[in-house]
Amino acid sequence: MKFTAGQIASILNGKVEGDENTVVNCFSKIEEGKPGSLSFLANPKYTHYIYETAASVILINNDFLPQKEVKATLIRVEDAYKSIAVLLDIYNKMIEKPVGIEKQSFVHKKALLGKDVYVGAFSYVGKDSKIGNNVQIYPGCYVGNNVNIGDNCILFPGVKIYYNTVIGKNCTLHAGCVIGADGFGFAPNNGDAFMKIAQIGNVILEDNVELGALVTIDRATMGSTIIRAGVKLDNHNHVAHNVEIGKNTVIAAQSGIAGTTKVGENCMIGGQVGISPHITIANGTKISSQSGISNNVLKEDSILMGAPAYEIRAYHKSYIHFKNLDDIVKRLESLEKKLSDK
Amino acid sequence: MKFTAGQIASILNGKVEGDENTVVNCFSKIEEGKPGSLSFLANPKYTHYIYETAASVILINNDFLPQKEVKATLIRVEDAYKSIAVLLDIYNKMIEKPVGIEKQSFVHKKALLGKDVYVGAFSYVGKDSKIGNNVQIYPGCYVGNNVNIGDNCILFPGVKIYYNTVIGKNCTLHAGCVIGADGFGFAPNNGDAFMKIAQIGNVILEDNVELGALVTIDRATMGSTIIRAGVKLDNHNHVAHNVEIGKNTVIAAQSGIAGTTKVGENCMIGGQVGISPHITIANGTKISSQSGISNNVLKEDSILMGAPAYEIRAYHKSYIHFKNLDDIVKRLESLEKKLSDK
Amino acid sequence: MKFTAGQIASILNGKVEGDENTVVNCFSKIEEGKPGSLSFLANPKYTHYIYETAASVILINNDFLPQKEVKATLIRVEDAYKSIAVLLDIYNKMIEKPVGIEKQSFVHKKALLGKDVYVGAFSYVGKDSKIGNNVQIYPGCYVGNNVNIGDNCILFPGVKIYYNTVIGKNCTLHAGCVIGADGFGFAPNNGDAFMKIAQIGNVILEDNVELGALVTIDRATMGSTIIRAGVKLDNHNHVAHNVEIGKNTVIAAQSGIAGTTKVGENCMIGGQVGISPHITIANGTKISSQSGISNNVLKEDSILMGAPAYEIRAYHKSYIHFKNLDDIVKRLESLEKKLSDK
Repeated sequence: MKFTAGQIASILNGKVEGDENTVVNCFSKIEEGKPGSLSFLANPKYTHYIYETAASVILINNDFLPQKEVKATLIRVEDAYKSIAVLLDIYNKMIEKPVGIEKQSFVHKKALLGKDVYVGAFSYVGKDSKIGNNVQIYPGCYVGNNVNIGDNCILFPGVKIYYNTVIGKNCTLHAGCVIGADGFGFAPNNGDAFMKIAQIGNVILEDNVELGALVTIDRATMGSTIIRAGVKLDNHNHVAHNVEIGKNTVIAAQSGIAGTTKVGENCMIGGQVGISPHITIANGTKISSQSGISNNVLKEDSILMGAPAYEIRAYHKSYIHFKNLDDIVKRLESLEKKLSDK
Repeated sequence: MKFTAGQIASILNGKVEGDENTVVNCFSKIEEGKPGSLSFLANPKYTHYIYETAASVILINNDFLPQKEVKATLIRVEDAYKSIAVLLDIYNKMIEKPVGIEKQSFVHKKALLGKDVYVGAFSYVGKDSKIGNNVQIYPGCYVGNNVNIGDNCILFPGVKIYYNTVIGKNCTLHAGCVIGADGFGFAPNNGDAFMKIAQIGNVILEDNVELGALVTIDRATMGSTIIRAGVKLDNHNHVAHNVEIGKNTVIAAQSGIAGTTKVGENCMIGGQVGISPHITIANGTKISSQSGISNNVLKEDSILMGAPAYEIRAYHKSYIHFKNLDDIVKRLESLEKKLSDK
Repeated sequence: MKFTAGQIASILNGKVEGDENTVVNCFSKIEEGKPGSLSFLANPKYTHYIYETAASVILINNDFLPQKEVKATLIRVEDAYKSIAVLLDIYNKMIEKPVGIEKQSFVHKKALLGKDVYVGAFSYVGKDSKIGNNVQIYPGCYVGNNVNIGDNCILFPGVKIYYNTVIGKNCTLHAGCVIGADGFGFAPNNGDAFMKIAQIGNVILEDNVELGALVTIDRATMGSTIIRAGVKLDNHNHVAHNVEIGKNTVIAAQSGIAGTTKVGENCMIGGQVGISPHITIANGTKISSQSGISNNVLKEDSILMGAPAYEIRAYHKSYIHFKNLDDIVKRLESLEKKLSDK
């Protein structure tokens, strides 16, 4: 890849300041800039790097005013962060994509494949499954019986999908995801042993869902576990049976949602959060990392922290006092002494 | 599947109230009931749904007294929850089970397979391993050398079992479980680097163990990591080297038990719990989600919360005060002022 | 395996006390000793077992003075723990190692394999990838295009490595690890949906890195996510895009490090720890299990606990008061009453 500042500016509808013919052949973060690299400045915290960086070309916002000399060629755009995202996407699409059915795969004769599908070696597509157009199934995946996968989905290596799962269009599942394993349902039996509750429901992922590596989404006991359109889950997330996650909610890594809970739309949930079973989380809820949600969240756009979690500013206040508890107790002792002295 | 209320009642030894000929063809939760579906009412919290649901047939406990008219046909049984579990199990057993050795698998010539075994494509069974009768090994599994798997076990896709592992009868391992990886054993070496301690022990799962997706159970340094009969571990659990988990203990998702710890029988452990190494947890201990157990739990049937955890009611009391700390400190300040004014 | 006490002593440069011809054929922990087993005593907490154990031979430190009769044959060495590690390692190396390219594997014709490489069945090695000498790739692994793996690495079953990853020498990756999946990068788009930020960087593991089962290390957005030499990560760890982990740092199971954070050298981090994005952790930092690190740690060799974490002794003090809060509040009430009585 080789582009001039002028070519990049014309893709982004930007304006060059400096030499239009400056050539770049890779991307870099501004603090890691090197000759020949294209970088960007969006976060004001990083502004000081623009005067030091060795990057050859830098995307900046229209309103950026340099305080000192900048050596790099600049390209002014409306939104430097979005512009770099556009370029990364173009670059990413230039990477060779795999196509065709590799010989060492297994596709059941009763499975239906769309156009331009990739099925990698050692991948398995079961009976009555339907795979949409342009779907990429990397090596070592398992797609059970009667699974439906929409157009343009990508299953990275080792994704495992149990029977009856339904996946919408444009979904990306990173390596090792497990979709449709049994929910954790056991009933106390005579004595201390547990009786397994058969899990006969399924999992539905709507369109534009992205799952990080090793995400698990369990099938419903009856009915469906549902991940609504646009949801993004980071690595190692766990979603239990009969959960529903609302549209465009994003969850950072290693969080878990217990059975039958409903998470609203447009929520932002941190990493290592735990959410109890059988509760409801309102739309727009924000939850700080490592929090535990044990009750319904009824008010939309709440911002929560703690375990059990409550309003984040109140939590922060309490936590400051917690850190001071030794001092607080000493003050209490001193009062006790004063009073007993009297 | 199509059944009448009368047929279902006779399977369950129940009594029909309403039309014996009402036909159902699927299951639903009572709040999601639709014409043609069979539902149940066990949790009193859901009682109000019975007057609204569109389900055609509902299993209820013998002692249920309707307060209003119920449109659905009812079937009275001793325990509605257990009865629905029985029906789900019957339904689940009607799903076609895979059989035979798929051509694209690898079974070592010195491996021994029992009767009616399934080995899916791209699964590997190593030298000297013994696979019991009716075992199902789904596609993409790995069974290393000298592994012993008892009758009726199910290995869902992508399960990885290292050498020398011993698995009892009737165990279910969901997709992506890793059994027998090295324990995390390193000793400080000269300087700052670490020296690996070879892990030469193994893992033993006794009968009727069920592991959710992506559970890891590490092999012992020497001796065995042991999961006793009837234990159930939810997705993403981590069990370190030389741990022992007692009979019928259940652990929710994403918990971790550090090396050499002994967890008792009949414990119930929540999600995202962490348990320190080299400790002992008494039988019947219950541990709230996200707790951290750093010391021995000696008293049976303790109920614990917090990190480090202690008795749950005491924890709840402290946490209420924690939430009020800002107010508590203001009260302290006010006393200080009063006293200094005097 | 059969060795006499005399043979073992000569391997370890130790001194036999008792019968040189005592034969052992397995290892045991001292508390699980049985006739024919070789054990060791390093931790003084276990000293009392040496008088009871049925182990036939026991390694002890040179300075150990028995208080009672010991039945076993003893071997005195400088460091009993290191000596047992040496023996375990010898034993481990005697286990038959797999070699050769198994027929049912896929190796791209443009991949380069070193000498004495093992590629197990159902493993995939992509275009332009280079595999060093003595590398073992167990069954069911995926190595994408243009991946570089150094000499003597072991990839246990089901490891998935995305394109452009670079792995140094002597690295061990346990089953199911995912290296190089996309970082979790999304930008708010028009409305509530998110736009994916293409992740075009890579992952670099330096020499002597060991990763437990199901560890995920995400590729950088641009540049590299870097795991420095000698780092050891336990099962289920999550390392986000553009993170750097310094030399010889060890992290226990189920911890997570968010994007762009730099962890120093020689850190020791407990299990289930969460570390925020865009921060720096000084060399030698020790972090207690389940802690949350949300700010830079500037001082080397800090020992931290809590969420958010701070100095561990101060945390412990606060936590003791937390447990006493009910009593503290009662004392406050009593003061209030006294003062209002006056």
